[in-house]
Amino acid sequence: MSAINFTLIKQDGQARLGSLKTPHGTIDTPIFMPVGTQATVKAMTPDELKQLGAQIILGNTYHLYLRPGHELIARMGGLHEFMGWNGPILTDSGGFQVFSLGELRKITEEGVRFQSHLDGSYHMLTPEKSIEVQEALGSDIMMCFDECPPSPGDRAYVSRSLEMTTRWARRCKDAQRRDDQALFGIVQGGIFEDLRARSACELQEISFDGYALGGVSVGEEKERMLDVMNFTAPYLPVDKPRYVMGIGTPEDLVEGINAGFDMFDCVMPTRNARNGMLFTSFGRVNIKGAIYAEDRGPIDPECSCYVCRNFSRAYLRHLYRAGEILASRLNTWHNLNYYLDLMSQARKAISDGRFADFRRDFYAKRDKTC
Amino acid sequence: MSAINFTLIKQDGQARLGSLKTPHGTIDTPIFMPVGTQATVKAMTPDELKQLGAQIILGNTYHLYLRPGHELIARMGGLHEFMGWNGPILTDSGGFQVFSLGELRKITEEGVRFQSHLDGSYHMLTPEKSIEVQEALGSDIMMCFDECPPSPGDRAYVSRSLEMTTRWARRCKDAQRRDDQALFGIVQGGIFEDLRARSACELQEISFDGYALGGVSVGEEKERMLDVMNFTAPYLPVDKPRYVMGIGTPEDLVEGINAGFDMFDCVMPTRNARNGMLFTSFGRVNIKGAIYAEDRGPIDPECSCYVCRNFSRAYLRHLYRAGEILASRLNTWHNLNYYLDLMSQARKAISDGRFADFRRDFYAKRDKTC
Repeated sequence: MSAINFTLIKQDGQARLGSLKTPHGTIDTPIFMPVGTQATVKAMTPDELKQLGAQIILGNTYHLYLRPGHELIARMGGLHEFMGWNGPILTDSGGFQVFSLGELRKITEEGVRFQSHLDGSYHMLTPEKSIEVQEALGSDIMMCFDECPPSPGDRAYVSRSLEMTTRWARRCKDAQRRDDQALFGIVQGGIFEDLRARSACELQEISFDGYALGGVSVGEEKERMLDVMNFTAPYLPVDKPRYVMGIGTPEDLVEGINAGFDMFDCVMPTRNARNGMLFTSFGRVNIKGAIYAEDRGPIDPECSCYVCRNFSRAYLRHLYRAGEILASRLNTWHNLNYYLDLMSQARKAISDGRFADFRRDFYAKRDKTC
Repeated sequence: MSAINFTLIKQDGQARLGSLKTPHGTIDTPIFMPVGTQATVKAMTPDELKQLGAQIILGNTYHLYLRPGHELIARMGGLHEFMGWNGPILTDSGGFQVFSLGELRKITEEGVRFQSHLDGSYHMLTPEKSIEVQEALGSDIMMCFDECPPSPGDRAYVSRSLEMTTRWARRCKDAQRRDDQALFGIVQGGIFEDLRARSACELQEISFDGYALGGVSVGEEKERMLDVMNFTAPYLPVDKPRYVMGIGTPEDLVEGINAGFDMFDCVMPTRNARNGMLFTSFGRVNIKGAIYAEDRGPIDPECSCYVCRNFSRAYLRHLYRAGEILASRLNTWHNLNYYLDLMSQARKAISDGRFADFRRDFYAKRDKTC
């Protein structure tokens, strides 16, 4: 008995409209998941995320394990209670972050020994430990602890790596104790179709509640992301949710949906917002630009979000230059609205059987300038 | 014909309940004005300020003159329009900030020559220039450009300084062109009662829409603030609003009201919030403290603000330690709520003729620990 239940409502080309029932509520897919690394989606309150239409958010196991600690969060009633978000939460495994530590980590069959980026202290993350932490956090969806091989990876390394990822996936499943949390497997295999296929098949033999595409947000895989998404999707079961981890641009999301994926997460809308980069229906706006100094128009004339209804580009540019917290807040609000609204439009298009038109219009608009 | 109209509704001891009609709305006094230095009350949206019950906010002429520039703000429709706040705004004269620049400024009868803290460029602020900038900003209440003498100041210096402040006040009044903005005089005179009295009387001869007490937020005057407030108030007209500039703690505000003052502003609730210092009915809480690591209670059990209803001390401590923007937001929300609610309680107490009881209870509660 799975903790979640996925219903495929409609397919339009490869694009899928679905519904994912979790212990903390039902999600419409395709969905974008705002990233709440340290038990907060940066600059936003949980209420605001709800207002924006966020249905599920992501928490980072690595960060929460180090600070404030998963055991503290468990004693505080779990991550939902701790951060005041009562909707669904997906937690990653911590794997991606520890592999990103470079010199500060060492990989063995047992797991990954690493040093904290906060205080240099030594820690060991294993499949079993990752599940223990994610169970303490109490997320609705947990991710298997996988190895993200360095990119570009030679075929031999990638092949050995995905074999270990499969063994680690089995250990994750065996380590699972709670029955109110789903567990997703992560397909690795770099840019090699046969390796991605092998990874997908081996994971399905173990059987997970959903399947994710790992390692496509970095290096060579990123450039070949479209290929990898397109050639891997057919190896994934149709009756389970499919998640592309860590991407991406609005274009990446549209292509991911087009390839048959259902779930996405990325720091791009929130991180870029804090750097003054805004997403609009006609492309990107760098609000720092001097051309906006006296621009009384909204960020995006086609956007009806709180920020676009109330504040001018001139004001947002001033706030950014002055280093004001409100700059991060308003920019984040707008960017998340853009991403969430884009997903909502995509769902509507699939529902209406016109996803191909939606995708064409999406690109056509971006060729214009404002 | 004044741009504002003050009605003294009730007096209870020296404490005054009043109503101040301005071009952008009517304010209940005594009132606390959150400080919006750079066209934003740090970390807050205008909507949130309204929700919190803020009735008037303060803008800083020095900062807005330098960035984005008062002429730009005028072209954008004025400060209200630029920042999306449609309630009353009071602007200071820029004087306090330029005097605080120390080595970077030089005072003459003409005005103050200073270097920008942003880029070192040279500028001249005079009474006429200050009014020009404040008229471009379009605040409801402007302040006269005054000299804040260094503290502790010897009697001879303070005396000469207040004479110049009086001459500058007259130049400010003569420079005023718009009739939809009020202008307040600023009483100087250090810790010397006769000098404060002289300043108050000379300003009344010129006649202003309201009177402020300057120079009590720094140095020696701060220590003797209670004396200065108490001995100066009787020299101010009863039918005009009285404003103590730049204070202070909750205790300072209660004492200011007790001395017969109506308006207050201070960066303390917002700045301290960003440093993790929270105001509560039982005193101050430093949310960084390890004792709050697993504290599931709210900041203040007697507070019903959004933050206290939704988030634990443990979570707020985590956000602060993690350097999250949400820490600044939630702490600012709570502290402003505390200040604004304290003023609301004070008004109610004066209205009920029990301000003395209110003041006694306020201190009694603070002797307890939580």
